[in-house]
Amino acid sequence: MSTKILALAGGVGGAKLALGLSKLLSPEDLTVVVNTGDDEEFHGLHVSPDLDTVMYTLSGLANPETGWGLQGETFNALERLTAYGADTWFGLGDKDLATHIMRTMMLAQGKSLSEVTLALSRALGIAHEIAPMTDDRVRTIVETEIGPLAFQDYFVKHRCEPKATSISFDGGAQAEPSAGFVQALETSDAMVYCPSNPYLSVAPILEVGDVREKVRHFPGIRIAVSPIVGGQALKGPAAKLMQEFGIEPSCVDVAKQYVGLCDCFVIDEVDRNQAKEIEALGMRVEVCNTVMVTEDDKIDLGRRIIDFVAG
Amino acid sequence: MSTKILALAGGVGGAKLALGLSKLLSPEDLTVVVNTGDDEEFHGLHVSPDLDTVMYTLSGLANPETGWGLQGETFNALERLTAYGADTWFGLGDKDLATHIMRTMMLAQGKSLSEVTLALSRALGIAHEIAPMTDDRVRTIVETEIGPLAFQDYFVKHRCEPKATSISFDGGAQAEPSAGFVQALETSDAMVYCPSNPYLSVAPILEVGDVREKVRHFPGIRIAVSPIVGGQALKGPAAKLMQEFGIEPSCVDVAKQYVGLCDCFVIDEVDRNQAKEIEALGMRVEVCNTVMVTEDDKIDLGRRIIDFVAG
Repeated sequence: MSTKILALAGGVGGAKLALGLSKLLSPEDLTVVVNTGDDEEFHGLHVSPDLDTVMYTLSGLANPETGWGLQGETFNALERLTAYGADTWFGLGDKDLATHIMRTMMLAQGKSLSEVTLALSRALGIAHEIAPMTDDRVRTIVETEIGPLAFQDYFVKHRCEPKATSISFDGGAQAEPSAGFVQALETSDAMVYCPSNPYLSVAPILEVGDVREKVRHFPGIRIAVSPIVGGQALKGPAAKLMQEFGIEPSCVDVAKQYVGLCDCFVIDEVDRNQAKEIEALGMRVEVCNTVMVTEDDKIDLGRRIIDFVAG
Repeated sequence: MSTKILALAGGVGGAKLALGLSKLLSPEDLTVVVNTGDDEEFHGLHVSPDLDTVMYTLSGLANPETGWGLQGETFNALERLTAYGADTWFGLGDKDLATHIMRTMMLAQGKSLSEVTLALSRALGIAHEIAPMTDDRVRTIVETEIGPLAFQDYFVKHRCEPKATSISFDGGAQAEPSAGFVQALETSDAMVYCPSNPYLSVAPILEVGDVREKVRHFPGIRIAVSPIVGGQALKGPAAKLMQEFGIEPSCVDVAKQYVGLCDCFVIDEVDRNQAKEIEALGMRVEVCNTVMVTEDDKIDLGRRIIDFVAG
């Protein structure tokens, strides 16, 4: 019997588990819905960093050292753009530019971001479905001590350094989830929150239209994997943000973000002692190794997730 | 006493003489007006091949082997675009893409092609003025035995192979010459037709609005350099086109294109015996070496042209 899974993912961390799941599930049994609150226009080109990271990872073309961008990348166009006086703090590689050029062209031709993502995925040899959370424009804004910053401005240009005070999702309420997202919500047996930043990667997905309500009433099992392990974020600013929001970074506090939206919370072995506290939030807790370094790690965690769905 | 020159140029051949002139004249004494009938949109990006060739040549960044494109170019984006299924017969390099990305972005922001060209030229360190023939849309269409072809389609994709029957300039009559072009026509002491294809590079410039009329009444000296030397085109399809139009390729027949628009026709030493025939068209003839291989050749021809203006 096959199990149909909807995975919600942000960038690098989410893409790792999505890759593991894609190695275990047939294409019709996995939909990866990706955050697009981080999308940005650079030099007139529509860049979807999280969609690209998931696509590049699932196609096997991702740069293994960074987790984002493409292998064997060069930066000759960016160097020229810099010489032309463009603001080039966002590191677009030459190969990567082709993705943004294609996306921008297809969007200008009237195609939806879902259609563009499908076309690019197929061209990259990806059989599984990758869908943007929405075809509408949603932008994650980080309110900081130096003023509101668009996500990439905060994340890349300012290296997450300014103290954040709150996060908002411009356009979220007016947006509609993409058709692929809606269908996966309606037909999947399980929903998996990949280990992505709950504030910056998962929250924007939940803030699209009535998605939070749909997830609340999702009939299958909802499983979250903590991106906080041993009080540290495996990658990115999740722990720093928690501190700035006055929260002690821990997997318990990630779980609190998902109360009413999650049935099973997966924590790392090192956090085993926090299981009781999470169970008190009304979730079943599963403990396993959640740190994914090798491809085997990604497949192993994917297998555990599929087991948890079954069990 | 300084001599102010307006040079009309297409791509590689024209750029060579424009470079020579730029090495001899101060920035305020040279305006290079460039054909934009070859402009094309590739992958949603506005490409201006002749403007780029002139800019790259004057900045010293042009690929010395081809005369077009940039030195040390890579083609990683194009390879990816091909993998995405894009039609990539037009060879856009990675560095070159930066030019098209900047141009497209600035045009989308409402800047004119003249403003974009000025900004890119300055960023490339070019002090002399390079102006598009027009800020409006003009497209050179080659009518051929296989139907009408947009210029790049004819020139690059079909390698000028289909037999041409006529050439037209879509939008030419409605277009207005750029402000830089008009100013140069009004204030220059001399006008130079660089050795570019008379049908495909110079004709589109003359077909913009009332330019042909303005050139007819240009008060200074008008000098043309023949792109046909010894019955051969130095580069490109000029001689082939002449044959297809039923004309024996020769510098005399180039001169015939400029009757009423040219005072002094410059031919190569090898064509000295054709001087009389050209004089019979009502032009003074000057003979010198016109084949430009080295940078010195370009400066030498530039110097001869300046002498002819004075003499």
